[in-house]
Amino acid sequence: MRENMTKLFEKIMDFNFDNYGNNFLLTKDKSFNHIQATILLANWLKLIHQNHKSFRVFDTGLAISIFRDNSTRTRFSFSSAAHALGLGVQDLDEQKSQIAHGETVRETANMISFLAELIGIRDDMYLGEGHTYMKEVSDALDMGYEEGVLHQRPGLINLQCDIDHPTQTMADLCKLRDYFGGFKKLKGKKVAMTWAYSPSYGKPLSVPQGIINLLPRLGMDVTLAHPDGYDLLEDEVNYACKTAAENNANFTITNSMEEAFKDADIVYPKSWAPMQVMQKRTELLMAKDKVGLDDLEKHCLEHNKKYVHWECDRDKMDLTKNKDALYMHCLPADITGVSCAQGEVSKEVFEQYRKETYHQASFKPFVIAAMGILTRFDSPEQIISKIHNNLSYRF
Amino acid sequence: MRENMTKLFEKIMDFNFDNYGNNFLLTKDKSFNHIQATILLANWLKLIHQNHKSFRVFDTGLAISIFRDNSTRTRFSFSSAAHALGLGVQDLDEQKSQIAHGETVRETANMISFLAELIGIRDDMYLGEGHTYMKEVSDALDMGYEEGVLHQRPGLINLQCDIDHPTQTMADLCKLRDYFGGFKKLKGKKVAMTWAYSPSYGKPLSVPQGIINLLPRLGMDVTLAHPDGYDLLEDEVNYACKTAAENNANFTITNSMEEAFKDADIVYPKSWAPMQVMQKRTELLMAKDKVGLDDLEKHCLEHNKKYVHWECDRDKMDLTKNKDALYMHCLPADITGVSCAQGEVSKEVFEQYRKETYHQASFKPFVIAAMGILTRFDSPEQIISKIHNNLSYRF
Amino acid sequence: MRENMTKLFEKIMDFNFDNYGNNFLLTKDKSFNHIQATILLANWLKLIHQNHKSFRVFDTGLAISIFRDNSTRTRFSFSSAAHALGLGVQDLDEQKSQIAHGETVRETANMISFLAELIGIRDDMYLGEGHTYMKEVSDALDMGYEEGVLHQRPGLINLQCDIDHPTQTMADLCKLRDYFGGFKKLKGKKVAMTWAYSPSYGKPLSVPQGIINLLPRLGMDVTLAHPDGYDLLEDEVNYACKTAAENNANFTITNSMEEAFKDADIVYPKSWAPMQVMQKRTELLMAKDKVGLDDLEKHCLEHNKKYVHWECDRDKMDLTKNKDALYMHCLPADITGVSCAQGEVSKEVFEQYRKETYHQASFKPFVIAAMGILTRFDSPEQIISKIHNNLSYRF
Repeated sequence: MRENMTKLFEKIMDFNFDNYGNNFLLTKDKSFNHIQATILLANWLKLIHQNHKSFRVFDTGLAISIFRDNSTRTRFSFSSAAHALGLGVQDLDEQKSQIAHGETVRETANMISFLAELIGIRDDMYLGEGHTYMKEVSDALDMGYEEGVLHQRPGLINLQCDIDHPTQTMADLCKLRDYFGGFKKLKGKKVAMTWAYSPSYGKPLSVPQGIINLLPRLGMDVTLAHPDGYDLLEDEVNYACKTAAENNANFTITNSMEEAFKDADIVYPKSWAPMQVMQKRTELLMAKDKVGLDDLEKHCLEHNKKYVHWECDRDKMDLTKNKDALYMHCLPADITGVSCAQGEVSKEVFEQYRKETYHQASFKPFVIAAMGILTRFDSPEQIISKIHNNLSYRF
Repeated sequence: MRENMTKLFEKIMDFNFDNYGNNFLLTKDKSFNHIQATILLANWLKLIHQNHKSFRVFDTGLAISIFRDNSTRTRFSFSSAAHALGLGVQDLDEQKSQIAHGETVRETANMISFLAELIGIRDDMYLGEGHTYMKEVSDALDMGYEEGVLHQRPGLINLQCDIDHPTQTMADLCKLRDYFGGFKKLKGKKVAMTWAYSPSYGKPLSVPQGIINLLPRLGMDVTLAHPDGYDLLEDEVNYACKTAAENNANFTITNSMEEAFKDADIVYPKSWAPMQVMQKRTELLMAKDKVGLDDLEKHCLEHNKKYVHWECDRDKMDLTKNKDALYMHCLPADITGVSCAQGEVSKEVFEQYRKETYHQASFKPFVIAAMGILTRFDSPEQIISKIHNNLSYRF
Repeated sequence: MRENMTKLFEKIMDFNFDNYGNNFLLTKDKSFNHIQATILLANWLKLIHQNHKSFRVFDTGLAISIFRDNSTRTRFSFSSAAHALGLGVQDLDEQKSQIAHGETVRETANMISFLAELIGIRDDMYLGEGHTYMKEVSDALDMGYEEGVLHQRPGLINLQCDIDHPTQTMADLCKLRDYFGGFKKLKGKKVAMTWAYSPSYGKPLSVPQGIINLLPRLGMDVTLAHPDGYDLLEDEVNYACKTAAENNANFTITNSMEEAFKDADIVYPKSWAPMQVMQKRTELLMAKDKVGLDDLEKHCLEHNKKYVHWECDRDKMDLTKNKDALYMHCLPADITGVSCAQGEVSKEVFEQYRKETYHQASFKPFVIAAMGILTRFDSPEQIISKIHNNLSYRF
């Protein structure tokens, strides 16, 4: 989709940014108006970068990253966004810090934020924990700002929690809008969000939960497919049902990958752990029960093998609309014969869509930058206008 | 205390910055004139930040942090200050680096500093080591600059050593000046710098040593209280005596927390290890005597328990002036029933003053930024004027 | 050598930068014209910095460092260069990241590079691996850029591989040009690139290989000296022979340190591991054969001891031209009686030339910055002119 920088700017300025809020924790917290504005802003920032121009907003300041789980891509996306906005990045490494020694979340959140403009958190290991932690940080920041301890309320962005992965799903939506040519073209498109086999276990539920919650809002028909027992969190499935109904979209659950793929415009085959396993794993991790964790892993990997045929291969792709649905993945994918003996996707299918998956990923830093602008500023339209009026080359 | 940005600037410009020096290692190295100028500059920078304006000084350049002990708050304070001044931060991680393999301090100090503007060091684990190491680095930088190897002499800031913790105590002084309404109001105020019980051991002596050395210079009456055997370094206590006498202030030592609290305007109850234990610990750490360290810890924790009643609680606070002395802490505090079963301060007292302790901490990044400007530049008044003349919004 | 900033700029602009390429992996990949231009540009950037002016090129953007081996100096040199150019630095820590779990180099290279302007890689542990890995990254970046996934092709710089260490040898050449007063003065100068004893093993071959490949191109006569069995890679030695012949320079190999030192203008005594040992070590490292590695180390250290007299001492220095050849080292050196009982160089000789070795090292950040500008931009002369036209004070 070719877009004009000025026209996109004008479109963005038509949106109402009131009550956007200082956090981006879950897409379901945001109005559809705000979801669209975020997507357009991310696209505009990407267009600016592509034209070698700068969308620097800050003269100086700090962005803070807190990664409670390993990450390469998200770490680089956050760092890229922060630096493009003019911020330096300081990582809070809880191993290195005193935070492990009894500090309260409230205190630490304030202590690190005196000059912070943006905070990004990844916390997806424990069911029931990640989102809760982020809300605690949010409350601490609100309090610190109200009490005058902080001179500004930093924007807070969820870089993946136990419930949602909004920087991923919003990047996915950028890709879909770009691929199909606009939000309106997405209405009625059929999406297969399906489980896929992987020789690993413990992958978070946040991507499928985020997808089934977000895409129905565009009027897209989503089919969720997974083997028996690989359920997502009940609340998230219920929200998906409700939101689909409100948007005159279909939301279906099946235990057949083939059924989901049938006539799909988009397929998103991706492994995740059964919700019950994640709950068990959370308990064991918290109890530091190494033996229990090893047993659970062994048991799960064995159980997973029953579903080794849940692979996105050529035959299944042939079931999709015109045999050429868009294949999506948040990467890295477990590719059969490449990164593992048997995985989520066949080598042939992945190779065919590799460029598309890279392009899909390329939206993430710009989504984070857009969220940064929108959560940090009370009147983001002023900042956006300033970027527009001062566009100059980055070098 | 409400201050006017322009008036504060004018006050600062009345100071004489000659011979400030390129290091800030110990407050006792600095003239009272320079101490005051640093405090006012820190306050001015904070005011600038609060007004969302920029005190960026550098177009590009590097700030280097060397943390030989864990740190969250100081790490973020240093990073915040560096980025606000326009510098990037590179951490020298001695685990990752070749420094552990026989490189001399002199060589490393030069090799990392070719483009460095600022260096911050935390080295508080070993008695007799931290300050010595910083002076070695300082000598190496002087030599490198004189020999023309370095194009500039980076400013060097002590982020806590075995003797002093000047970025903390100067932030504390900022808080006191703000709380009581000016330097002059501090004269004659009574400070209780007291040991407090903690279920941990090995906490550095630098904060109490720094406090008893700095506050008498303001004419404040300081009472140092600790159980028998929890002595501070003799040189530091002697300096406190001498400096109190020179400033017509009282400096008293007692082994009663209650006595220190009596009629105090300010209380600073904080745990530290007995000096003799720190010396023993230094020997054991250097000998890598794990068993000896475990024994020492066990013994000390046991010994500490004799002083479990050294807790800052409501009853002790009631002994203070009008029952409402200002409670100070460098954080994190060991709060009874919150971060430990029995600690330095009761939950009630801490909660009452929590906001004040956060506010106290909020001065640290600005103190570091002020020290950065004053140590790095031979004519800081030019830089300060430049900031004043170019004040613009940070975003 | 005193140089004039404007004259040096004019000299640089006389060079032809066409086809410089987006990588600096090996000096032998570059034309002599490009080698000279890089050296002059590095010197000019150093002169700008020395005059407290800025050579910032980027408004915002990211530099990525990938260190597959420990490093202090190179890490700081890269970070210094990146920040001076206006970039932030994000390190790809393969321990922390998901890269260890089956991701392909191609994918990771793209995923981290969406906003990257510069990438520096150190990978010198495994013979046959480092350069190969860098070429893979290069291919991935080319592909990502061609496919439109990346908006720009980041410049890629070798921060040390198994074959060459171009940021070191180019800094060495800067030092030589400065010391002797210009490129022309280097013609006919005699260099002793010799092995030296060290009580360690496993040091890379990249520095001696880089030196024997680069200096003959200046018409310098290079003698390579090492004990029997301490061979360099055959291809690199062959290239040195060929290139010396093409430049009417002498290239000799001897197994006598004294012979190499005789009448030398420059001596570069430095330990390295025998090539066969590095090959064996590579196999053992990849097989994670801890016992085998320990055996190999023990055997090698024992074997090294036969050559303990390969020390650069006063007697050997007296063999050199006028007894005052320039002593060079990439640092840190193993100094007898300082960093080890018996090492590469005597304390006396090192101390005499210490300042020169520090000065030699000081060119490295500027060499990296020069390579950054030349590899990143298709028309570097535009960027260089822009720096020249906008020279302003850094603070």
